[in-house]
Amino acid sequence: MGNIMDCFQGFFDYETSKSVVVRSRRLGVIFRVFQLLVLVYFVGWVFIHEKAYQATEEVKEVSVVTKLKGVAATGDIAMVESGKARVWDVAEYVVPSQGSQSFAVITHTHETRGQQLGVCPEVESIPRAICKNDTDCLPGDLDFLFSGVKTGRCVPRNAQISTCEVFAWCPVENEDDSKTKKPSNESAKFTLFIKNNIAFPRFNFSKSNLRPGKDTSYLKGCKHDSIYNNYCPIFSLGDLYRQAFHNDFMFPKEGAVLAILIDWNCNLDHGEQNCHPKYSFKRIDVQGGGYNFRFARHYMSPNGTETRLLVKAYAIRFDIIVSGVAGKFDIIPMVIQIAAALTSFSLASLICDWLLLNFSRQRNAIRIQKFEEVSQGKSASATPSMVQADSDDLLKPGTSSVLNSLTN
Amino acid sequence: MGNIMDCFQGFFDYETSKSVVVRSRRLGVIFRVFQLLVLVYFVGWVFIHEKAYQATEEVKEVSVVTKLKGVAATGDIAMVESGKARVWDVAEYVVPSQGSQSFAVITHTHETRGQQLGVCPEVESIPRAICKNDTDCLPGDLDFLFSGVKTGRCVPRNAQISTCEVFAWCPVENEDDSKTKKPSNESAKFTLFIKNNIAFPRFNFSKSNLRPGKDTSYLKGCKHDSIYNNYCPIFSLGDLYRQAFHNDFMFPKEGAVLAILIDWNCNLDHGEQNCHPKYSFKRIDVQGGGYNFRFARHYMSPNGTETRLLVKAYAIRFDIIVSGVAGKFDIIPMVIQIAAALTSFSLASLICDWLLLNFSRQRNAIRIQKFEEVSQGKSASATPSMVQADSDDLLKPGTSSVLNSLTN
Amino acid sequence: MGNIMDCFQGFFDYETSKSVVVRSRRLGVIFRVFQLLVLVYFVGWVFIHEKAYQATEEVKEVSVVTKLKGVAATGDIAMVESGKARVWDVAEYVVPSQGSQSFAVITHTHETRGQQLGVCPEVESIPRAICKNDTDCLPGDLDFLFSGVKTGRCVPRNAQISTCEVFAWCPVENEDDSKTKKPSNESAKFTLFIKNNIAFPRFNFSKSNLRPGKDTSYLKGCKHDSIYNNYCPIFSLGDLYRQAFHNDFMFPKEGAVLAILIDWNCNLDHGEQNCHPKYSFKRIDVQGGGYNFRFARHYMSPNGTETRLLVKAYAIRFDIIVSGVAGKFDIIPMVIQIAAALTSFSLASLICDWLLLNFSRQRNAIRIQKFEEVSQGKSASATPSMVQADSDDLLKPGTSSVLNSLTN
Repeated sequence: MGNIMDCFQGFFDYETSKSVVVRSRRLGVIFRVFQLLVLVYFVGWVFIHEKAYQATEEVKEVSVVTKLKGVAATGDIAMVESGKARVWDVAEYVVPSQGSQSFAVITHTHETRGQQLGVCPEVESIPRAICKNDTDCLPGDLDFLFSGVKTGRCVPRNAQISTCEVFAWCPVENEDDSKTKKPSNESAKFTLFIKNNIAFPRFNFSKSNLRPGKDTSYLKGCKHDSIYNNYCPIFSLGDLYRQAFHNDFMFPKEGAVLAILIDWNCNLDHGEQNCHPKYSFKRIDVQGGGYNFRFARHYMSPNGTETRLLVKAYAIRFDIIVSGVAGKFDIIPMVIQIAAALTSFSLASLICDWLLLNFSRQRNAIRIQKFEEVSQGKSASATPSMVQADSDDLLKPGTSSVLNSLTN
Repeated sequence: MGNIMDCFQGFFDYETSKSVVVRSRRLGVIFRVFQLLVLVYFVGWVFIHEKAYQATEEVKEVSVVTKLKGVAATGDIAMVESGKARVWDVAEYVVPSQGSQSFAVITHTHETRGQQLGVCPEVESIPRAICKNDTDCLPGDLDFLFSGVKTGRCVPRNAQISTCEVFAWCPVENEDDSKTKKPSNESAKFTLFIKNNIAFPRFNFSKSNLRPGKDTSYLKGCKHDSIYNNYCPIFSLGDLYRQAFHNDFMFPKEGAVLAILIDWNCNLDHGEQNCHPKYSFKRIDVQGGGYNFRFARHYMSPNGTETRLLVKAYAIRFDIIVSGVAGKFDIIPMVIQIAAALTSFSLASLICDWLLLNFSRQRNAIRIQKFEEVSQGKSASATPSMVQADSDDLLKPGTSSVLNSLTN
Repeated sequence: MGNIMDCFQGFFDYETSKSVVVRSRRLGVIFRVFQLLVLVYFVGWVFIHEKAYQATEEVKEVSVVTKLKGVAATGDIAMVESGKARVWDVAEYVVPSQGSQSFAVITHTHETRGQQLGVCPEVESIPRAICKNDTDCLPGDLDFLFSGVKTGRCVPRNAQISTCEVFAWCPVENEDDSKTKKPSNESAKFTLFIKNNIAFPRFNFSKSNLRPGKDTSYLKGCKHDSIYNNYCPIFSLGDLYRQAFHNDFMFPKEGAVLAILIDWNCNLDHGEQNCHPKYSFKRIDVQGGGYNFRFARHYMSPNGTETRLLVKAYAIRFDIIVSGVAGKFDIIPMVIQIAAALTSFSLASLICDWLLLNFSRQRNAIRIQKFEEVSQGKSASATPSMVQADSDDLLKPGTSSVLNSLTN
């Protein structure tokens, strides 16, 4: 019964570790300085700067709708007849048309008009297309560079040169035509409107880059400004170009790929007042890379013959990339960080113990006081029959140093 | 040699901290309650509810293929001749056509037929286009609002009003035409089929929202239902509309952007039985925002004149947004959480020690028993020559309280 | 004043826990083995293998530009007149044309030429379209399977069969036409060029899958090879097909969806030398799923009648999926992991204490030495008036075992 009482009583006893206090100011100061360093690190860096007490979530449910406005003309009304003038409005220069997150603004085009299915000589700008006789025009490995499928004949391209004949949309595109329209930076006058919605579902938070309070008339007249009009997401393409191409502003005649980065870095501990979009712009195609693509418009002549207009379009492609992280106080990272902090405090003890036991002049005395010994018998691990020390000895801590000297 | 033995033997000695047991039921209960709180928190919240023993990965390798079915007509066969009737099948109302993750279903259109390059007066709905004489038509800052490039002339638009002449695709679009087709919610009858594949490469797991066991005939007849047919991803647009627009179901005549959220919240500890897609639908364009875009169809007349049909399409855009997190038991977060739990237990000791040493009636007695003192000399940190206590004294723990009183 | 000195002096005292040393080699070995296991686990697995000392970031600011090259022909020049031959160049087979991250390569098409708005009998392949009289043609639930809107009449489709009349683009598409062009794996000859830029903004690091040092002439001639030409992102579609469809290479006549996975697994601790793209290819549409879509080309006849060509295109869709994680040394995860390691060391103590106090032959002796007792009075929690133990007793640790026996 005494045992049961023991058990029960023992459960609600409170154990606390017995400490040895060393009255050494030198060690005490080292110890406190270590603790202070750990404290400053955790409070200053981990908690205040890195906000490690917050749970975080990357931005989700991103939706982007874009709309361009603006019109430009190449040539004038007198050149319409000859096909050299063109008016570029959104239906002409935005590809794809439906206002998606990635779109291209065509800056200039190289058109090949009136193509029909047929056979014709390949362009001479493809080195392997130049031929002397039909044996130069056998199908080969690099046929994907050709504009069509080789018929196997070598035919005169012009007075000077012969090239392989191809079954293709004829006449084939000839990029060397110097009639290529010059790159126009007319597009710098266009404006881009970006509607962006995001959500952080973990925190049940969603936001738009439009201020709900502002009416549509505000959006009709405003222009984006990161300080005064951050919630007016209307950008002049010219401004984007200046920021993306920096000072060395040469309009890229080969096209380019620009990223419009929208960053939502949100601290949701104080509602949405610390959650705003931040816009930046950068060029992301490799230097001189350029950007172009080809598409065709198909026409049917009254007699049923299909004709197409092949357009090689040089464009500025805009990729709208939305990123962002939201942080909000959460008990789990908080507890982990506090546990890490507490454990780090014990590092200070470890280091000071090591100093104390190895470099203190009194290290032997302190060792003896810090470590009380009890022996379970020297050959404990060697033989199953343990030599038990007299438990009476073990009851008297004062004698353990004697026992210690015996077991050595 | 005795030292070497010391070293070697000392390495396999076992040290355990010496404890002071305080037989105070009050403190013992406080201590156990604290420990219980920590235990309940870690087991209940961190491990069971938050599954903090799992490594997690966000969904990757997302692929979405969509396919719409359904056909609607505006007007009837008698109105075809006059151009007022139209049949809308997938090739007409889905933009882009290739079944991508984001697509628009055109609900109604405003068409401007027979546009050709030329000069014509701007519409009067643009305030700055209204003019009295040519000086009102000089190029200006807000030219991007115009449909074309100003020629600099002021010409009569109709009997009442003059507007600036523009070089544009003429006649220019006039949105005030009340001939705009009314928004039709015919699209509510269409069905949307979504194929979605995802993968969690870290866990070497991939899944589709189609049940591999089900044959294609199942997919021909089924309709999505989150309980009975969750693996039939065929949705009626009407159902989507009802869920996205809630009860205030007014078909948005200005278009809208809807998100179809597919959430994969997977606990992979038990294979794939806890990994299913969950669908939800919400409107994400700002209230009254709407959604429309313009595109053109180009025709070539027999005499080589280019004509285009400009379409302003009001549409419901669907953005399919796939998100998801998979969790699976992993030893690293497990160990970190257990370590945090153990450290948190020591918080209970810290608090109880503080209570014991400051608020217990026996605090002085307990302090003396808890803290054995050893002095390294009072002026240790001040002078390099340390006053060493007699190490003989230090050998006798029983006398340390005497030493203590001396050093104070 | 003595108290103030106490306070001040106490702050810079150094406390270290008092330990009981058990000279048991068996327990010592167990203890050290436990510690070794924890050490090996943390150093070997957590730090070296899992690099848990690094902060990580998922890949961001992903931009992909694609470009296809190659041309193929169905039929030959003699078949052009009859509309059975066609040359497929990029402007014909890539949808969408602008080089986006997800694109389809059309492998064969089923065309329905000369559609005009009108009424005509539905195809007999839709079971519900077959009718005996007009009552079979009333509007119903599954009308979205029809090609048009039912007029309510039952009309003869051919000599044998009658079907419901529909208001549609006539003639309606008839997939049973065996004129469907056979799937061609001509596309295996095409090449795909992928430009991919990524960034890890947290580490201020960005990279491209093109080597900046290499000039454009390199890119004109090279072919991707993961060992020798990893920075030449030009792929033959044939190679992609072989890897994605494995050995069972049957060109999928119903189309397919392939993922091109680009994985950037970057260890940024040593600059960018451990940060390279890794390409892999897999089929992600469910077996036999296939991939096709419909689009229309609209023509205007001279008399103003609109005609369209409906194309059902079977295609291989390529989804380029970029993923990646970068890791870099960071002090926060480092400290958390070290703290976890230290705490785990204390697990070894917990286990050994438990063994010592419960299974050692000397457990009673050791208990007595490990636990010094001090009593705050038995009825501490029951009555406010605590029975105080004589503090003189408490001063003498040697007598605490006596006190212990008294309080039990």
